[in-house]
Amino acid sequence: MTIRIDYTNMMSGAVSGGISSEAWSGAREAFANARQIFVKRREGDELGFINLALDGAGIGALLGFADGTGQAFSDIVVLGIGGSALGPIALRSALRSTSWNALDDEAREYYPRLHVLENIDPVTVTSVLDRVELGRTLFLVISKSGGTAETMAQYLIARGRLQAELGEDYHRHLVFITDPVKGALREIARRDGIAALEIPSNVGGRFSALSPVGLLPAALIGIDVRALLAGAADMFTRCDSDDLASNPAAVFGTLQWLADTTLGRRNHIMMPYSDPLRDFGGWFVQLWAESLGKIQPGGTSVGPTPIPALGVTDQHSQVQLFMEGPLDKTVTFLVVGQRKADLEIPRLHDDIPELAYLGGRTLADLLDAERRATAAALSQRGRLNMTITLDSIDAHHVGGLIMLFEMATIYAGGLYGVNPLDQPGVELGKRFTYALMGRPDAVDAKREWDAIREPEQRWSV
Amino acid sequence: MTIRIDYTNMMSGAVSGGISSEAWSGAREAFANARQIFVKRREGDELGFINLALDGAGIGALLGFADGTGQAFSDIVVLGIGGSALGPIALRSALRSTSWNALDDEAREYYPRLHVLENIDPVTVTSVLDRVELGRTLFLVISKSGGTAETMAQYLIARGRLQAELGEDYHRHLVFITDPVKGALREIARRDGIAALEIPSNVGGRFSALSPVGLLPAALIGIDVRALLAGAADMFTRCDSDDLASNPAAVFGTLQWLADTTLGRRNHIMMPYSDPLRDFGGWFVQLWAESLGKIQPGGTSVGPTPIPALGVTDQHSQVQLFMEGPLDKTVTFLVVGQRKADLEIPRLHDDIPELAYLGGRTLADLLDAERRATAAALSQRGRLNMTITLDSIDAHHVGGLIMLFEMATIYAGGLYGVNPLDQPGVELGKRFTYALMGRPDAVDAKREWDAIREPEQRWSV
Repeated sequence: MTIRIDYTNMMSGAVSGGISSEAWSGAREAFANARQIFVKRREGDELGFINLALDGAGIGALLGFADGTGQAFSDIVVLGIGGSALGPIALRSALRSTSWNALDDEAREYYPRLHVLENIDPVTVTSVLDRVELGRTLFLVISKSGGTAETMAQYLIARGRLQAELGEDYHRHLVFITDPVKGALREIARRDGIAALEIPSNVGGRFSALSPVGLLPAALIGIDVRALLAGAADMFTRCDSDDLASNPAAVFGTLQWLADTTLGRRNHIMMPYSDPLRDFGGWFVQLWAESLGKIQPGGTSVGPTPIPALGVTDQHSQVQLFMEGPLDKTVTFLVVGQRKADLEIPRLHDDIPELAYLGGRTLADLLDAERRATAAALSQRGRLNMTITLDSIDAHHVGGLIMLFEMATIYAGGLYGVNPLDQPGVELGKRFTYALMGRPDAVDAKREWDAIREPEQRWSV
Repeated sequence: MTIRIDYTNMMSGAVSGGISSEAWSGAREAFANARQIFVKRREGDELGFINLALDGAGIGALLGFADGTGQAFSDIVVLGIGGSALGPIALRSALRSTSWNALDDEAREYYPRLHVLENIDPVTVTSVLDRVELGRTLFLVISKSGGTAETMAQYLIARGRLQAELGEDYHRHLVFITDPVKGALREIARRDGIAALEIPSNVGGRFSALSPVGLLPAALIGIDVRALLAGAADMFTRCDSDDLASNPAAVFGTLQWLADTTLGRRNHIMMPYSDPLRDFGGWFVQLWAESLGKIQPGGTSVGPTPIPALGVTDQHSQVQLFMEGPLDKTVTFLVVGQRKADLEIPRLHDDIPELAYLGGRTLADLLDAERRATAAALSQRGRLNMTITLDSIDAHHVGGLIMLFEMATIYAGGLYGVNPLDQPGVELGKRFTYALMGRPDAVDAKREWDAIREPEQRWSV
């Protein structure tokens, strides 16, 4: 496996206004501090996502479960949101196909379709539930807390339909993935004899891609989950180091933090030049945004804004802004060495210059030329960028990529001076939702909601 | 039709640190100036997107073409990128289904599937080309300039396959949508007798959703394109006004500009609480980013960064950052009054408080409660937000929404002091691509590329 970060174009030697060698040397101390915080968290057993990769605990049982049940179903439906959805989606796109559910049985090698219901729009929920054959469908209900409102609502609807159509057999079409001990789902599993897998208590939603949250859906559609874990474990070894320069997670996290806090490059674009890695962008956005967008203990709001993009597509959308807009961005290119397929462009219209030069080349040639051209153009204009190259898109590399960014996030948390593992900012919205939905035990929330003062003037058009 | 913007939560009366009444009154003058620039552009016939809605020119022919050919095909494949792809995708998701291509013939009312190849990743291109039956597939080759590298490459591959499989019949499976006079596609259409529709010369890619670029794909899958245009025309009437307070496009554009330039709220989140409107976000991102991310004539880089989000999904991903991160964002909620479907949540587990309160309510209830809760929570924490409400998602409203944002973009261009119709920043990357692909006429580009100095030190890990 090789995952390599080339960050030449983040540095002032290549890009005007970039990070100077001095600033980079100076950052060693800040990283050393972040590393210490990491070590403490690890000793305090807060970083369960690492154990997932190193122990592989429970993987045998998970694979047994997937083997035993998977073939019985034509459709898997994940009911989950946020970290319970983004991992499965990213793995499906990267390691199976971006159009997996549109493939026929043979093209899917008789593995089931995998739907991920990551929202509660009734239009979508209806569409998916109407489309699947319930008797051949398995619902994976995924919630760390076991009480996520959106997932509970989906679960109630799915269970209602299963009971109506299949009677007592309903429970064979449900699997819960939740906390080992706590929460409503765990209680229901016990009471009703529903199969339930564990998300370790020290693994938060956005760090759960390599727990059963990501691995069970992955295994059910035939992804090599052992290779995912092995790739993550290999990457962890590289990232578990005090030496900034040889630690890829430390390099990524420290560069982004420096670019933000010393150069005002606060918007961090994640731009794969690869359709299979497109949904990886959504997974990264949650990880980076929810972990680092925080109020520091001193009361200061910090945190970079991660933004998804796609090459070459966004050259025709966002790149104008990246090239000429404010100097407030970094761009990370995600690049694949060896693609699974290539297509030669035939020689037609040899007399028309807009087409002739393409003939005989391949789509991968063009994609790579455009990516190199874009990186060079950005660099010429003082726009910081770096390139992360995967040899190929396979389970080993994707596992490595996941661990790379998870580790980078923990280090960045230390650098930004925030706790990368919590998300206190979403509590107020949750309380207000309970108040509006009339949850009986939300008495304080109701009082808080009612206390909101209506503004003297409303503005509308 | 009603499309309403409630911007109370952008203002200091409701949100601490918001726009003051004085600043808002003061902005009238800036808008008056932007309005003048708009009027001049309109008089100079630069704003063809307006005529598309008002004239409906060519719509009869387009509908005739769609009726005559549409039913012969099971699959439509759009070959296009940027503005040639984002409009068709947004229309398909909003007005048909986010999973249109996964529906069976009956659920699609026997309209064809619509694939949009907006990238050149060979993995995706291969997957789509292998999946469709060429004899029942129509390729729409969409390029304003008629020479877009990515689209030309796709076209050559598709044409090669069509000729190999269908012989001389190939040309019945191709339609070009391009400039009326110029460009390689126009030349090929003439020479080889391939059907070609026109993108008016004064309609740029990102303003082309209501030209044949968006309308032909829409018509082919049964969307009411006359209603799209009528909705856009209605909205234009509201937006063609000197009075800031009653002009929705002016209000949206001026608020965002004020929030950016006077309050540092430069990141503009577009957050529909609706799956069908999700892809509208991608369309908006191109429009806002590519139109406004510019270097002013004086040499200053300006431009807001549009960011897509989705409610409620992103409450579990980006909202932590929106709530606690730096005060550099505005959030625009896109809300639907009447959804096409709703689902009641059954009363099960009445003894478990995490689930009991949901029983008897509907998914739309929960979705709306969460949106109101999120807006209120953001407001409490000084995070500016506004809410755009559509009565329902139908062609009339979607046409109106498109016109609203197109007009807002033109006004915002005037406010930011940039030309919203060009995209000079992408030229350098294009030249470098030509150099790397060895295009024979790219002599200057090759020299420019070769002149790039290799940095003294490369940095990698």
